[in-house]
Amino acid sequence: MKLTILGCHSATPRWDANPTAQVLSVKGHLFLIDCGEGTQIQLRRFKVKFVRIKHIFISHLHGDHFFGLVGLISTFRLLGREAELHIYGPKGIKEAITLQLKLSNSWTNYPLLFHELNSKEPVLLYEDDKITVTTIPLDHRVYTNGFLFQEKPGQRILNIDKAKELKVEMSYFRKIKEGEDGVTEDGKVIPNDQITLPPEPAKSYAFCSDTAYFPQIVPQIKKVSTLYHEATFLEEHHQLAVKTRHSTAKEAASIAKEAQVGKLILGHYSGRYANTEPFQLEAQEIFESVALAEDGASFEI
Amino acid sequence: MKLTILGCHSATPRWDANPTAQVLSVKGHLFLIDCGEGTQIQLRRFKVKFVRIKHIFISHLHGDHFFGLVGLISTFRLLGREAELHIYGPKGIKEAITLQLKLSNSWTNYPLLFHELNSKEPVLLYEDDKITVTTIPLDHRVYTNGFLFQEKPGQRILNIDKAKELKVEMSYFRKIKEGEDGVTEDGKVIPNDQITLPPEPAKSYAFCSDTAYFPQIVPQIKKVSTLYHEATFLEEHHQLAVKTRHSTAKEAASIAKEAQVGKLILGHYSGRYANTEPFQLEAQEIFESVALAEDGASFEI
Repeated sequence: MKLTILGCHSATPRWDANPTAQVLSVKGHLFLIDCGEGTQIQLRRFKVKFVRIKHIFISHLHGDHFFGLVGLISTFRLLGREAELHIYGPKGIKEAITLQLKLSNSWTNYPLLFHELNSKEPVLLYEDDKITVTTIPLDHRVYTNGFLFQEKPGQRILNIDKAKELKVEMSYFRKIKEGEDGVTEDGKVIPNDQITLPPEPAKSYAFCSDTAYFPQIVPQIKKVSTLYHEATFLEEHHQLAVKTRHSTAKEAASIAKEAQVGKLILGHYSGRYANTEPFQLEAQEIFESVALAEDGASFEI
Repeated sequence: MKLTILGCHSATPRWDANPTAQVLSVKGHLFLIDCGEGTQIQLRRFKVKFVRIKHIFISHLHGDHFFGLVGLISTFRLLGREAELHIYGPKGIKEAITLQLKLSNSWTNYPLLFHELNSKEPVLLYEDDKITVTTIPLDHRVYTNGFLFQEKPGQRILNIDKAKELKVEMSYFRKIKEGEDGVTEDGKVIPNDQITLPPEPAKSYAFCSDTAYFPQIVPQIKKVSTLYHEATFLEEHHQLAVKTRHSTAKEAASIAKEAQVGKLILGHYSGRYANTEPFQLEAQEIFESVALAEDGASFEI
């Protein structure tokens, strides 16, 4: 998995601070998460092959997570897209987009499919043979979901040297990777675990923005490889976080610690802070492995 | 009048090519004309004091002229705006904006007033003691207006040296500027034109985008100081212009020549052209005074 931050600032876009949008690349899939104003420009700036995006996940309908969507959808039309595009987001998203396309008399000529959400329980949104995507219900001023991307465990890895040494017939190799036993040229059965290694550990990524401190999510995101958690404020503005249903860096770190995640990435900084380093310092008092999102940054998961 | 180009490219925004938006400054007023995605970022980039904008004119509801509006409206709310904001645009604009504000549960706390347009005749949209703004009905794929900004003639200019020489009483000076005659200390009437000079010529600016070649606008924009006219294509792609109801540089120049305008500014270039110089060269074969819009350029009118 590779995560690219297109924007990670809250509220109003500024020339050097883009609102929330991320691209997650998983085994050839490109998933777009949130789509603030200017996201399509950021996609070009960071040379993302964005015509390959087939699934867009919108956490909530505040402008800084959503106002770039209609423009991106329109651009896909202008680029001659033919592939399906799936939009997952809160109820109302379909009407907001389709009304604007209708007014501009520019309905898409590719299939545009909306999956509207209103459940307060986790919902499986997408599944193929490699990955699942599930909502993480959050606690914000409007209906909001985070998203959990989980790779499925891969195949066992064939230990070719060992298989050859034991004279396992090559025609069994594909099935051995799928967990079956091998058979030698003279018909002897070799147990699977003697000629394979365990699969690479499955990776997972949890995106949690925007939300108040909400420890109810901890069981669902337990031990994810990487957690992106919003940190709009520092503890010195804790009361503002409570009032606006956002989190502080310390609260994000507490969630990361409780959930025993591999790594925490902070973002969604309020524009009141001239620099973001204090977010990292505050979080690291609670949880060691903390990175700061910044526009254009990439993270291998 | 001072015109600042925030964006002047057609269709999809790119990192170095913003969609249509302009700010016209007239005697202390700031008028915003069109508002493509990213306009609020451009306003900050070019240090426009954009909280002073009270009137926004939207030509038509194609995304590259309109998708930045909801974000700007939201930003005004976040900045604590209290002043009225007037939006002039095609019927449907109110529903598109209010639906999105409703979905994000962030209705403005300043008065947001929509003036929806559907007339195919010129309509006076705004008038104060210094300026009028009128629609210029255009010919595009969807209902579209240009906008004509006309300064009112100023007061006559008092020729103070002459008035003193003729011993005109100072208490008459204000009325003399308004066109009345002067009276000397010993009661003699001095005709107004002996002690005044004509007012500065009133300036005017016509914004015409997007439109097919549409000479019907010529009488309305006759002799404007400056005409911005779209030129999406060069003549070599004339058929594309016809098909998409856009203009070529040559057609824009023909309109400028017919209307005997002071200066022509071209913009709304298609992304297919790597540079814009050929637009100027093509137009100058018809009409001499041609400038090219570019993002961030300013023009004194």
